[in-house]
Amino acid sequence: MKQYNVAIVGATGAVGEQMRLILESRGFPVGALRLLASPKSEGKRLTWRRTGVSVTALAEDSFADVDIALFSAGSAISRRYAPIARDAGAVVIDNSSAWRMEEGVPLVVPEVNRQALAGHSGIIANPNCSTIQMVVVLKPLHDRWGLKRVIVSTYQAVSGTGRLAVEELLAQARAYLAGEPINAEIYPHQIAFNLLPHIDVFGADGYSNEERKMVNETRKIMDLPDLAMTATTVRVPIVVSHSESVNAEFVGSPDIDAARKILAAAPGVEVVDDPENAIYPMPITAAGKDSCYVGRLRLDGSAVNGLNLWVVADNLRKGAALNAVQIAECLISDGYLK
Amino acid sequence: MKQYNVAIVGATGAVGEQMRLILESRGFPVGALRLLASPKSEGKRLTWRRTGVSVTALAEDSFADVDIALFSAGSAISRRYAPIARDAGAVVIDNSSAWRMEEGVPLVVPEVNRQALAGHSGIIANPNCSTIQMVVVLKPLHDRWGLKRVIVSTYQAVSGTGRLAVEELLAQARAYLAGEPINAEIYPHQIAFNLLPHIDVFGADGYSNEERKMVNETRKIMDLPDLAMTATTVRVPIVVSHSESVNAEFVGSPDIDAARKILAAAPGVEVVDDPENAIYPMPITAAGKDSCYVGRLRLDGSAVNGLNLWVVADNLRKGAALNAVQIAECLISDGYLK
Repeated sequence: MKQYNVAIVGATGAVGEQMRLILESRGFPVGALRLLASPKSEGKRLTWRRTGVSVTALAEDSFADVDIALFSAGSAISRRYAPIARDAGAVVIDNSSAWRMEEGVPLVVPEVNRQALAGHSGIIANPNCSTIQMVVVLKPLHDRWGLKRVIVSTYQAVSGTGRLAVEELLAQARAYLAGEPINAEIYPHQIAFNLLPHIDVFGADGYSNEERKMVNETRKIMDLPDLAMTATTVRVPIVVSHSESVNAEFVGSPDIDAARKILAAAPGVEVVDDPENAIYPMPITAAGKDSCYVGRLRLDGSAVNGLNLWVVADNLRKGAALNAVQIAECLISDGYLK
Repeated sequence: MKQYNVAIVGATGAVGEQMRLILESRGFPVGALRLLASPKSEGKRLTWRRTGVSVTALAEDSFADVDIALFSAGSAISRRYAPIARDAGAVVIDNSSAWRMEEGVPLVVPEVNRQALAGHSGIIANPNCSTIQMVVVLKPLHDRWGLKRVIVSTYQAVSGTGRLAVEELLAQARAYLAGEPINAEIYPHQIAFNLLPHIDVFGADGYSNEERKMVNETRKIMDLPDLAMTATTVRVPIVVSHSESVNAEFVGSPDIDAARKILAAAPGVEVVDDPENAIYPMPITAAGKDSCYVGRLRLDGSAVNGLNLWVVADNLRKGAALNAVQIAECLISDGYLK
């Protein structure tokens, strides 16, 4: 089997770590693995296939002989180094928001639009975590009934911000329980035992970038440029897994049994929906798993063809690292990588 | 000034405690205060006006000479003892769900429908916590533009379940941080660093009672029996204050500046809306306060006349005890109490 040299840019981050673990656990045909990070992590040794690989500092010459470069080191790094990696011959799969809305850059969730990989020009964007899990669930319903409008409210874990945010949540929780003063550095306010309707920066219309991303990326991925959609995104004191309350309206008339069957058969989706027995998707049960979990299916009597859904997925895996590795797998199996 | 004898049924609970504190801090004209609870709390002494009052066990003869009985001890107690209290001559203000939808029982949020107190027959219902804070904010907007549809997703604190739930959240958080096993007794699953799309019991249509209550109570309080509305209610690992992501559609065309002015002038509402400076309503800033805080005002481009709002209030105060005391104040000032 052909082997591919893979680079992970941002290898020491929360998502970078997951990328490495997922490449290994899925048996991705990695030849050489190159772990790239900032100079302060240079020399750090990370486990790989029962031995280890040393981290090297990201530089312009980091991408020689690299076939696939997985980026997860923030937008500024991606803006600068993705074209360098591409010009060195790698196909870039970028987890930042830098290239997502760029004309000609495919924005891909394999279960939804792997065909968008056709004719890529070397940079492929991995969508926002909160967008991915929602479109995986909405796509099969759209195929059946035609999506008309989406209203989503999110409950997003702090690991979406990164390792330091997880440390901050846990440190604040410890301080709170001990009755000690709480320090907030990563977030503008206490996040332990609190929540913030604030993810990313705000625009003049009052929407945050995260809310804007969810709308724009959903339209691009689902190829529904005029989809009516609005989002409210909220950070909650949870370590891993994003949850979403999704209200969807359709052209056709959904029924619950059919929706449950369609979702149960959909790739990447698991239906967890027996609320009378306290069975529904939750962050702690989705963490570390690959699926997008959906439950709390209800007809919405306030709309003509409305459906309420509750969607939970591991934001570091399907929301980021797993989806990126799945894109790489599609590139190989669909013949878009030499 | 005329004094009124007041009984608190459920005086040792989280809401009962707030009722006592709020009666005192607002200078409510209490003559004698009777604190009623289960027999196991009998004799417990609680502070009142720099001295104390002993708890007595609730019994059929507990309401002699009581003018106002504030109930917060669950639906079963209210079903049984509210008629007894009323027949003994007290006006009952009941915080449980037992009487809320009963024909002839006013369901009152003073800022919204104090006129519903007219012609009460001795039992007045205090609405569900998550309903109260939403209608306080929606009413002035409805008066201006005509409410057409509401889609709400909630983020509800554990104190809504009671004292034991608060203890469970904190004990679980301690265990989690110490790497020890987590016990769940009050909730069916871990609530620390997790969330549950589950409040109250579920019906065959998949909706929980909490979701049903929000819809039915909003229609009754706002006197909009046909209001199109749907709710998804979620328990989050927060001690005090419920938050709500509210999407509202109107007959008229709202604009943000006018909405902000209307809300700033509305009784019981405070506008906290400068997200670019990280200023928005949050649980920790609403806790212990009397207002319903609203922010994140945004036009919803996915609807003809849509508005997104973020509403936070202390669920034990405005969501329960404060609203009950305000109802008692209205009874006096509007002449509905002899």
